[in-house]
Amino acid sequence: MGGSFALAARQAGLVGSIAGYSASEKTRQTAVQLQVIDQACSSVAQAVQGADLVLLAVPVGAMLKSFEAMRDVLSPTALLMDVGSTKCDVIAAAQASLGERLPCFVPAHPIAGKEVSGIEHADAALYHNRRTILTPLPCTDSVRLQAAHALWAEMGSHVSTMTPEAHDATFAAVSHLPHMLAFAAVNALSAQPQGAAYLDMAGPGFKDFSRIAASDAAVWRDILSANRTEVLTQAAHFRAALTQFENALTKGDSAALQQLIQQASALRAAWTLQAHTPRNTTSEA
Amino acid sequence: MGGSFALAARQAGLVGSIAGYSASEKTRQTAVQLQVIDQACSSVAQAVQGADLVLLAVPVGAMLKSFEAMRDVLSPTALLMDVGSTKCDVIAAAQASLGERLPCFVPAHPIAGKEVSGIEHADAALYHNRRTILTPLPCTDSVRLQAAHALWAEMGSHVSTMTPEAHDATFAAVSHLPHMLAFAAVNALSAQPQGAAYLDMAGPGFKDFSRIAASDAAVWRDILSANRTEVLTQAAHFRAALTQFENALTKGDSAALQQLIQQASALRAAWTLQAHTPRNTTSEA
Repeated sequence: MGGSFALAARQAGLVGSIAGYSASEKTRQTAVQLQVIDQACSSVAQAVQGADLVLLAVPVGAMLKSFEAMRDVLSPTALLMDVGSTKCDVIAAAQASLGERLPCFVPAHPIAGKEVSGIEHADAALYHNRRTILTPLPCTDSVRLQAAHALWAEMGSHVSTMTPEAHDATFAAVSHLPHMLAFAAVNALSAQPQGAAYLDMAGPGFKDFSRIAASDAAVWRDILSANRTEVLTQAAHFRAALTQFENALTKGDSAALQQLIQQASALRAAWTLQAHTPRNTTSEA
Repeated sequence: MGGSFALAARQAGLVGSIAGYSASEKTRQTAVQLQVIDQACSSVAQAVQGADLVLLAVPVGAMLKSFEAMRDVLSPTALLMDVGSTKCDVIAAAQASLGERLPCFVPAHPIAGKEVSGIEHADAALYHNRRTILTPLPCTDSVRLQAAHALWAEMGSHVSTMTPEAHDATFAAVSHLPHMLAFAAVNALSAQPQGAAYLDMAGPGFKDFSRIAASDAAVWRDILSANRTEVLTQAAHFRAALTQFENALTKGDSAALQQLIQQASALRAAWTLQAHTPRNTTSEA
């Protein structure tokens, strides 16, 4: 996510020199070799020192430590953003650690990603024609919020704002729970003695359904943990919906079964992936 | 499925004149207009009379009635196949209705399809590089089994055989349950007051995960009903796997959570869609 941002920002002419830090020496070297960054730094503080723009792209569980590491060197005029998939917990970490620099922080969530992670998969087009959600705090500096909006828009992203709470409830429903269901579906197969043989026979439907189950474990551990209340609420809604199917099957009630499928099929057939004009958000600008 | 078979068989030079029957007058007319079939018939019996090759492409719940309608006119030398996604119930229907013609029947399941149904979406390439499973009965004529194998192979499909029971258990796990989960996930969203707003914000992950939820309601009512014992068994495995995630979240056990995700992620990342050399089937030669 960070490497893609660096490439996209450079391609859009939005940045000068890019300094980068990763805990992995190999990632730092590769980032320089691939010209994703100009300079590899040996600490968060060194990378942040003197920067006009700071993008924090770490699993959400690692945000607090990173905020603490940059607080004392962050320029009072800097714009700081994250790319975390949950927002309430990242904001709590920022509030607990950034002190006077809290107004510099514009929480951001670009709705984009790949099942493959790592600097070698950095992609300048990752955020193009995708949605990016900003979830400002009451104390967020409005000039920085506008700058953040303009910056993501220049990279081809469609930008909108939500409250952190609405964001986390929404993405528990349409992203976090689906990931958990896909993980559980794969594990349910592998838990069976014939699981490997079953998987050999899976077709194109299973391929798409389970694609998100290949996502990074550390990243998704943190997302599900951070948003666990909303995720568990969505899991309960899902279980209730699944029970309706099981009951129809158990009773042999094929009319009820068809109605349940028809409801899902009609809704999903009418749905299209939108990057624009979300119904429940207000657009900046 | 039937229209695609007609186009593919003609393209491969496997058939002469093609007669077709659909209960829908509009479908019959369109099939002739699009040159998918040469002649539209007004009944199953008329379409089957004198045919060397009969393909029955109806929802699995409608198979029995179709078998009954063709029994008395089916040529003793004909090859009869279906394309149903479940096999034990279709075979039971054939056994109950085909009488002396039962050896003519080679149960078939091409692992291919679209979320859009209807003759206007017929596609000569639908079965190309896809798997087709044949589930012969003990009484199935071996010459017809070989002919069925050759026919699907000529259309570019990779053909293998399984027992009907193994087929239904396998596809409950890798196809029928995933469809039911996708239907339930969409219904769980639409059951919530904010469901429409949530759906507006869904991204590419949700798009792929839920694609199969747009599938045809009558077709999937019949598949889930016909294979309900196996589907309910797979649903129970899935619930057990989901419970592990919910327990890890409830307890705040992030190590357990990461392990569960890692297991799914590693397996799914290593999995690829195969059309060849299934592990648990024997290949015809």
